[in-house]
Amino acid sequence: MPVDQTWMRRALSLALEAQNQTLPNPMVGAVLVSGQGELLSQGWHKQAGGPHAEVEALEPFNQVPADATLYVTLEPCNHQGRTGPCTDLLLKKGVKQLKVGTLDPNPKMQGQSVAYLESQGVQVETGIFEGPCRAINRIFNKHITTGLPYVTAKAAVTLDGKIANAIGASKWITGPESRAFGHQLRSSYQAIAVGAETLRVDNPRLTDRQSPSPRQPDRVVFSGSGTFNTKLDFFVSEETRRFLFLGRTAQIPKVTGITCFQSKEPWFDPTEALKHLYQAGICSLLLEGGSGLLAGFLAADRVDQLAIFYTPKIMGQPRAPGFAGDLGPLGLDQLPSFYFGKTLRLGEDLMIEAFKRSEDVYRID
Amino acid sequence: MPVDQTWMRRALSLALEAQNQTLPNPMVGAVLVSGQGELLSQGWHKQAGGPHAEVEALEPFNQVPADATLYVTLEPCNHQGRTGPCTDLLLKKGVKQLKVGTLDPNPKMQGQSVAYLESQGVQVETGIFEGPCRAINRIFNKHITTGLPYVTAKAAVTLDGKIANAIGASKWITGPESRAFGHQLRSSYQAIAVGAETLRVDNPRLTDRQSPSPRQPDRVVFSGSGTFNTKLDFFVSEETRRFLFLGRTAQIPKVTGITCFQSKEPWFDPTEALKHLYQAGICSLLLEGGSGLLAGFLAADRVDQLAIFYTPKIMGQPRAPGFAGDLGPLGLDQLPSFYFGKTLRLGEDLMIEAFKRSEDVYRID
Repeated sequence: MPVDQTWMRRALSLALEAQNQTLPNPMVGAVLVSGQGELLSQGWHKQAGGPHAEVEALEPFNQVPADATLYVTLEPCNHQGRTGPCTDLLLKKGVKQLKVGTLDPNPKMQGQSVAYLESQGVQVETGIFEGPCRAINRIFNKHITTGLPYVTAKAAVTLDGKIANAIGASKWITGPESRAFGHQLRSSYQAIAVGAETLRVDNPRLTDRQSPSPRQPDRVVFSGSGTFNTKLDFFVSEETRRFLFLGRTAQIPKVTGITCFQSKEPWFDPTEALKHLYQAGICSLLLEGGSGLLAGFLAADRVDQLAIFYTPKIMGQPRAPGFAGDLGPLGLDQLPSFYFGKTLRLGEDLMIEAFKRSEDVYRID
Repeated sequence: MPVDQTWMRRALSLALEAQNQTLPNPMVGAVLVSGQGELLSQGWHKQAGGPHAEVEALEPFNQVPADATLYVTLEPCNHQGRTGPCTDLLLKKGVKQLKVGTLDPNPKMQGQSVAYLESQGVQVETGIFEGPCRAINRIFNKHITTGLPYVTAKAAVTLDGKIANAIGASKWITGPESRAFGHQLRSSYQAIAVGAETLRVDNPRLTDRQSPSPRQPDRVVFSGSGTFNTKLDFFVSEETRRFLFLGRTAQIPKVTGITCFQSKEPWFDPTEALKHLYQAGICSLLLEGGSGLLAGFLAADRVDQLAIFYTPKIMGQPRAPGFAGDLGPLGLDQLPSFYFGKTLRLGEDLMIEAFKRSEDVYRID
């Protein structure tokens, strides 16, 4: 591996130390390397509000050696934050060589810092180990460029894509390792959404109960019509924020503390709902079913990622529900399409990741 | 890796040189190693009727050194073949130490040779790198212990297990790399089977047209009822042997050169059909669909392996046909169950292997 990639890879692993901790900010890592190729210092962005990776890496120095090179996974910021623009810090600390993983994806920003630093005499090289540096921030990239949360749909299915048998039995399709991983997944998203039918049938707590994460996701429910039993956990537990998106004929439940939105249409438009959630600070959303909710999000082209847990069994019951609901009569060239990411063995099961955009697939191995 | 495993692994790779070439015999590899741990000679069974691996490995010697060890992936034979029992050869050549990967799976044979050789003073150790040594011969193990061919079902599906959209369009679900691999798969089975509907709709040639293999599989068609258009390729091409298994009301087509069997039941029983195919010398069968044929074989518990080619798309049309047909109203604990083997990226697609028996899963990597 070329020496630049080796250092950028190190910066990347530092960035990943803060996985799921930095939103709405991106994950960023930085290393400062001497002219003789020795590591001088390192840093990473630990959480929103905390110092940026560059600040951490440059902190030990009044002035860095003139032959030192700073590797940063993401283009430095040029706006006023808690610690001032990183561009100014780099100039103040005398950074002469800068190598950047990927530019700031925000279309309004992209390349501005690099251009500014170059105009100030800094030698800048961009696109070092770019794919992985960009892919680790797929959630940030999504929300910063679109103003919408990143959406992952999760499903536990048989090899033929069924989430329950023909009479509706669904506990459990997959094994304990998959379920544990599913709980972990919950802690890596800022909110979890389910449809009303899933809420009624499963009464899910929508919390991560298996990993020791202190963070619990906010909870989101979509309901087209009908009424709710307000004894369901969603209505009782005030543990985290709750959002309810209702179709025209759904009844607003008489429960306080839930943020409700009601549509004039039979269903609440997924894109509109995502805008509301983003305004509430939610950058990432995990869809946990059912198939109607997923069909709505797929039809609106609002699914960025799939996490499908396959159990090595065959349902073979044509009337058993599939995980994707009814998308209408599509031709084979009109189907929602993804790109495979990694596959993961979980006990007897196999988890398959797929991404809407090929540039989100890059892996760091 | 312990030294025994290293040598057995080498014998195993030799055995695999003859992949798909030895049936009805197993693949077997052998290495002869000196007391100083040097390779003295090696051999493998290249094809049925040819010399056994032990014969090849011992051929250069009148008498092997007394401190030499022979590693063989499979228990040596003790019956008269083209070259006489291998047990006698080992004794004649003075083999004093023998290490065996796995015993002969035939219940009538298992361990007999080892017992005989031990009674003649040979020091024998068995079960070296046993899982892989057994798994490479899963086809042999199946037919020799059951008198039935090994059956693999192949399907090209969307993530939700659909083989066509709601109006029946199915060309092409998967991409060119998957289709090329599918052709290669054909050349590794002795026969290919399809249902009558697949024959009528797709008119498949059932030959491997993409790999340069000289071997073409025999062709098998199952039909419950109805008549055939005898202009279909299956009825016209005499390239390989053809077998037709008909239900009670199906019409025997007026074509010569096809071996026909007709049942007194609406459908030809898969197990009975497999017995007929085995009598015709067929040890391995690839089911290429459709879903009705697969359902029949699954219900009869006659599917040993799955090869499912997933395209990263979602069908989401509840009425679109799944790959597994209708297995009736099964509870979640009654579903046909498998064990995942390897996964393989093929262009944009992902091929997933699954095995009926966990002992068939062992991989050599």
